Amino acid sequence: MKSDKISEAVVRRLPVYLRYLNELHKREVATVSSQELGQRLDLNPAQIRKDLAYFGDFGRKGIGYDVIYLIEKIRQILKLDQQINVVLVGAGNLGHALSNYNAFLKDNMKIVAVFDAHTAKVGTRINNLTVLPMEELSDTIQKLSIRIGIITVPDIEAQNVADMLVAAGIEAILNFAPVILKAPSHIRIHTADFTTDLQSLAYYLDNGKEEMNNDTAEAGH
Amino acid sequence: MKSDKISEAVVRRLPVYLRYLNELHKREVATVSSQELGQRLDLNPAQIRKDLAYFGDFGRKGIGYDVIYLIEKIRQILKLDQQINVVLVGAGNLGHALSNYNAFLKDNMKIVAVFDAHTAKVGTRINNLTVLPMEELSDTIQKLSIRIGIITVPDIEAQNVADMLVAAGIEAILNFAPVILKAPSHIRIHTADFTTDLQSLAYYLDNGKEEMNNDTAEAGH
Repeated sequence: MKSDKISEAVVRRLPVYLRYLNELHKREVATVSSQELGQRLDLNPAQIRKDLAYFGDFGRKGIGYDVIYLIEKIRQILKLDQQINVVLVGAGNLGHALSNYNAFLKDNMKIVAVFDAHTAKVGTRINNLTVLPMEELSDTIQKLSIRIGIITVPDIEAQNVADMLVAAGIEAILNFAPVILKAPSHIRIHTADFTTDLQSLAYYLDNGKEEMNNDTAEAGH
Repeated sequence: MKSDKISEAVVRRLPVYLRYLNELHKREVATVSSQELGQRLDLNPAQIRKDLAYFGDFGRKGIGYDVIYLIEKIRQILKLDQQINVVLVGAGNLGHALSNYNAFLKDNMKIVAVFDAHTAKVGTRINNLTVLPMEELSDTIQKLSIRIGIITVPDIEAQNVADMLVAAGIEAILNFAPVILKAPSHIRIHTADFTTDLQSLAYYLDNGKEEMNNDTAEAGH
């Protein structure tokens, strides 16, 4: 099966391509070159051509990629035709902020339940959902066929919540707590830690200057 | 200069390595193998060895990497010895949540100012910072030598805020609005959109099953 060969790095880039392709489609742009994609998404065009080659040899020299075709292909690969229910644990500021994204998740993914361990939070509303107590976590996950869990609890509670999600049958976790979680190997965990984003940005603060100096030096040849 | 060769993918993995190495160091673990790193961080050990080879040939067969040495090297590369000031624009739920991370940014990075365009937010407190009006953005960035901006405003306001940050001299932006921002090419922008994280997790929901079936099939050989 072709999709077996796709590396994690490519899988993580596909939604980024998709988002920009959807923007192009909205603006009624029919084709896009790897150069333009690269410039807008800050990626090497050769890397983009290699990524998209997984889906067949449909980019044409001098014309580029068909936007609608590419959107369809990426949606198929990411299985955006399925309905996938998501549970969020942790009804603090971050939990509130993330459930506001529900509108952007659109067709296939939805946060369908929110949980919190603190009695003061239980019964409050986040958007159109009532915050539920942890005791109902397992039943709710099974009843609503929830497959992905989002963890937005303080770091000391995160592993415990992960264990509960795994025990309840969750298949993948998006973790926002700044800790590395343990889980059985068949559970997919992505950790979204914005401190690592900031640290990798810091790398470019000085390198950007170096590169600019190099550019100037090269321009003098 | 050696660091010029480091790809963006590697730069993005370094803070992840660093976080786990710091955990190991806290537990007084002296060495770690690429296999163990790979297992804990869900990365291919060969990829990790290749990444770390940028910093010299210091991994030893059968022993692994020296944790303290590796921490020092990665900190140097990421320039974590510098003080880097960060500004946050958007004092909503996400802004609140992110400024709670200030404690984790530790030695070198700090959110030193928070701004919001809405008068109702101006003057309120987020942790130990008073939310300032946008009119003071440019002066504050220059006065506090702020180099990185975090955008946590609604998507329709994001481009405008990015323009203001760039005009005020910001060098890099971490954007949480679900839009692709335009900026001059010397400005580094990372977009932290959790919907792309969720979509790439969805890819693995079914592939996980396929892989498990494949594993079973292979085990039968």
